[in-house]
Amino acid sequence: MTILRQGISSRMSQVVEHNGVIYLSGQVPIDWSLPIKEQTKEVLDNIDQQLALAGSNKSRILSATIWLDDVRDFDQMNEVWEAWVDPENPPARATCEARLAAPGVRVEITVTAAK
Amino acid sequence: MTILRQGISSRMSQVVEHNGVIYLSGQVPIDWSLPIKEQTKEVLDNIDQQLALAGSNKSRILSATIWLDDVRDFDQMNEVWEAWVDPENPPARATCEARLAAPGVRVEITVTAAK
Amino acid sequence: MTILRQGISSRMSQVVEHNGVIYLSGQVPIDWSLPIKEQTKEVLDNIDQQLALAGSNKSRILSATIWLDDVRDFDQMNEVWEAWVDPENPPARATCEARLAAPGVRVEITVTAAK
Repeated sequence: MTILRQGISSRMSQVVEHNGVIYLSGQVPIDWSLPIKEQTKEVLDNIDQQLALAGSNKSRILSATIWLDDVRDFDQMNEVWEAWVDPENPPARATCEARLAAPGVRVEITVTAAK
Repeated sequence: MTILRQGISSRMSQVVEHNGVIYLSGQVPIDWSLPIKEQTKEVLDNIDQQLALAGSNKSRILSATIWLDDVRDFDQMNEVWEAWVDPENPPARATCEARLAAPGVRVEITVTAAK
Repeated sequence: MTILRQGISSRMSQVVEHNGVIYLSGQVPIDWSLPIKEQTKEVLDNIDQQLALAGSNKSRILSATIWLDDVRDFDQMNEVWEAWVDPENPPARATCEARLAAPGVRVEITVTAAK
């Protein structure tokens, strides 16, 4: 069965598709100096863009894992998340706190979506 | 391909099903004042219930990720896990320590299962 | 649909296969006294071996999650990762810092691969 990859670097593919399921790399914000709500918005914009590249969209997300650098950002992140997510089609979700790969990054989200 | 969602809130679906695979949201205990073994038991009871809703059961879990608030709870969590898991059909599993979304929650588990 | 499991213990299966997708348990190094680059190499060797058992290989990895005990090991881990990964077929990837199940373990990696 074919595997399609997009956004290939020496380290990872931003988008991988196999058997009707799309796997995104962990999405981080562009501007790491922003506060949590703006960082969350940038991450969700990135997810929209990556899913569009793969011919999918946020209404078809199956599961999401959210990592917060500081779990005290939970409520503010959720405010942006809930304004973004398709209210009739939210994904399965898990959230926890973890130091992220670069200082300043407050939120990273991975998603799996249906084509 | 159809996506089925159950337990829909403004934030997530507790159960998402697509192409014969079931994705559960991170399951947490009901009573956050309990010690680790009782919290683990509550989480596993929740997983049983969610999988039953989706027409599956613990013998069909493909993978599980376990987050512990304190990795020193590892042995006690495993004791409850090993008494629960189907001995002939345990899932692929990964465990690590991470601060969870609410203080008091000592364990959160996500699973992916086959229908 | 059939589920195949290999490397079954009382706690988990090292390899689970369902519908053309392979789920590996979190792979850790063998020698926990080694520095990060050698630990990463041992983990990637383990992944090669587990995927071979399931009739797959690193060119067919769909997604990988990397947990580092200390995110300051990020660059050294990446050096070994980039020398190992199939340059034309890297997976979707997410990395974060998390205390791992045993002291001394500096890196744990889970992967999902296509058969």
